[in-house]
Amino acid sequence: MALAIGAVAHGQVVEDFLPSSANQPGKEYPKVNSERRVRVQISAPDANYVQLDIGAVKYDLVKDENGVWTGESAPQDEGFHYYQLNIDGASVPDPGSLYFYGAGRWGSGVEIPAHDDEFYALKNVPHGQVREHIYFSEIDDATRRCFVYTPPCYEHNPEKRYPVLYLQHGGGENETGWSAQGKANLIMDNLIAEGKAKPFIIVMDNGTWRMPERSRPADGGERPRGPWPPTGWADGFMNILTKDIIPMIDSNYRTIANQQNRAMAGLSMGAMQTRVITLANSDLFSHVGMFSGGSISIEDIEANPDFINNVNLLFISFGSTEVESGRYNMGTDPALNVEELKKRGLNAHYYVSPDTAHEWQTWRRSLYQFAPLLFQD
Amino acid sequence: MALAIGAVAHGQVVEDFLPSSANQPGKEYPKVNSERRVRVQISAPDANYVQLDIGAVKYDLVKDENGVWTGESAPQDEGFHYYQLNIDGASVPDPGSLYFYGAGRWGSGVEIPAHDDEFYALKNVPHGQVREHIYFSEIDDATRRCFVYTPPCYEHNPEKRYPVLYLQHGGGENETGWSAQGKANLIMDNLIAEGKAKPFIIVMDNGTWRMPERSRPADGGERPRGPWPPTGWADGFMNILTKDIIPMIDSNYRTIANQQNRAMAGLSMGAMQTRVITLANSDLFSHVGMFSGGSISIEDIEANPDFINNVNLLFISFGSTEVESGRYNMGTDPALNVEELKKRGLNAHYYVSPDTAHEWQTWRRSLYQFAPLLFQD
Repeated sequence: MALAIGAVAHGQVVEDFLPSSANQPGKEYPKVNSERRVRVQISAPDANYVQLDIGAVKYDLVKDENGVWTGESAPQDEGFHYYQLNIDGASVPDPGSLYFYGAGRWGSGVEIPAHDDEFYALKNVPHGQVREHIYFSEIDDATRRCFVYTPPCYEHNPEKRYPVLYLQHGGGENETGWSAQGKANLIMDNLIAEGKAKPFIIVMDNGTWRMPERSRPADGGERPRGPWPPTGWADGFMNILTKDIIPMIDSNYRTIANQQNRAMAGLSMGAMQTRVITLANSDLFSHVGMFSGGSISIEDIEANPDFINNVNLLFISFGSTEVESGRYNMGTDPALNVEELKKRGLNAHYYVSPDTAHEWQTWRRSLYQFAPLLFQD
Repeated sequence: MALAIGAVAHGQVVEDFLPSSANQPGKEYPKVNSERRVRVQISAPDANYVQLDIGAVKYDLVKDENGVWTGESAPQDEGFHYYQLNIDGASVPDPGSLYFYGAGRWGSGVEIPAHDDEFYALKNVPHGQVREHIYFSEIDDATRRCFVYTPPCYEHNPEKRYPVLYLQHGGGENETGWSAQGKANLIMDNLIAEGKAKPFIIVMDNGTWRMPERSRPADGGERPRGPWPPTGWADGFMNILTKDIIPMIDSNYRTIANQQNRAMAGLSMGAMQTRVITLANSDLFSHVGMFSGGSISIEDIEANPDFINNVNLLFISFGSTEVESGRYNMGTDPALNVEELKKRGLNAHYYVSPDTAHEWQTWRRSLYQFAPLLFQD
């Protein structure tokens, strides 16, 4: 990849920066201004150069007489972004931000205030819990961890049982992503407080998969011929999900343990897993959401005829920038797919997040649109 | 503070390094050898110098022809240690480790395998949950967060009610410390699985306090005259704990909501808070633990005569290095205090963690010793 080196002349920058809401307690930097630029600052008196690395662009920082480096990015999209600092060639987290798991590592994150950030704001409403749940998987022969969101009423209605959404992260992310970056718990708390969504349990597990060694391309080489991702790539997580996780959740939480009250959704890689797993297991899932990770085509339906009979709801979404770039187009056009599936009688929905790309603001909005549609039948 | 600069000649180092168990998934560094040295490695091709900063000592790393820096520390104590990298004067987290909140920031941590690490190992036993619990505090006029450990049987005995331990972190740490660094949940899961401790709920909240502006010393100046910490320093958290947190926990969890089934403990600053809060509120707490943060003296008891009548158990502990250095001695000798309190009829216990200092291995062991004593009467 060619590295774009960014530089911003100070005369262009609006000086109304405020600390990011994703900062560590008491930390002033990173800051964001009304143009949605990210300004970082770090003391590195003996460094040769320091850069802000955000959105696949590196921006040079400038050192002052005290050895403190400061600089800012071009305007970013609204919402959450991963970033790192580059100090003399070392890519490291910024000591100012909280840390999030993405790109296969714990790194820095920054929040660009969004015009619609009310829907995931921390408000004085009844809050559900996010529970760290450790369990043993027979399939994996290992102790694993998931996070489970229980809605605010869960503790106060000890007899009530709830539907469940299995909600997956993207590639390079893990089971912490949907609550930390995605704010799934706050989105649900707010929707439930406003009476806009039915309370349900959300299970967030780790769907990271390893490419089989034989299909791994040599450094710089071509991917092997055949379909991509390779056939069977989602089998590992499908087995763990259907044989270990679902029974474990049904025996530990007050679920309504049937297909009508079980949904699956995911973002990017998690959407691709959702597609493969729900096409093969429409007897287990009635509601399906795919955010920024392909869609269901007529060919898919014809190869898996149970899907259209079994599934009550299909929700497909993308960021507008993904749609404009054609990135979303994995062989078929999702908007056309949705129209075609509607004609065949499927309750299919298509949503495009305005002015966002393959990023968390798209997926927060997707969950906000998707959740009110769940378990309404 | 004078900076000690460490350096280790490679000839002295035993080459049996293994990745730390606190590393990020798939990361090889930091590594630890059988001498308990910590070796770090980072690519920083254009840096002038890189150091490992651990245990208040900085160790110089050496660059190879590929721009990768490597080096190691002197032997460390068994258990968990905070550390950072110093790249040309910038103090940053190591991209290889998981991150933990200590020293007032999220930073790197490393695990030195301990001879007794079985008691906090992740095993295939029934596991409790650690729940992120968001609530509104009237006292704070803010939304706050605590973590709540519920024991393994909690979900499967919907009628059963449980005692509660309020467990506090140290200065510069927060409500995440006792489960992330302390492994309190795994210690309890293992104790309960072996039948060595009664199941109880643990509440871990944020006890960070701000020094009143008027009592803050000028840079480099003397602390103001009078007692230290200043009188009233624990009042803020005492109010939140007694007026907001305890009622909130009692209304959201199946607690046994009385003094006989309520304990408080903490480490370092959290122990000092435990002392102040339980002396003033022995009608609320029956079991008291102070790890590396002073003790209860005869003068304390005489000033608060209800304490000795109300409290069923007092547990005082330190790391052996703290005892040897006299650091523990905050005006009174805790071992003598414990003996004196026993003579007065208090069920008092004194524990010294072998070969550890003011650090998490002392506190993990303290919880392991303390928990089996709780709620046995």
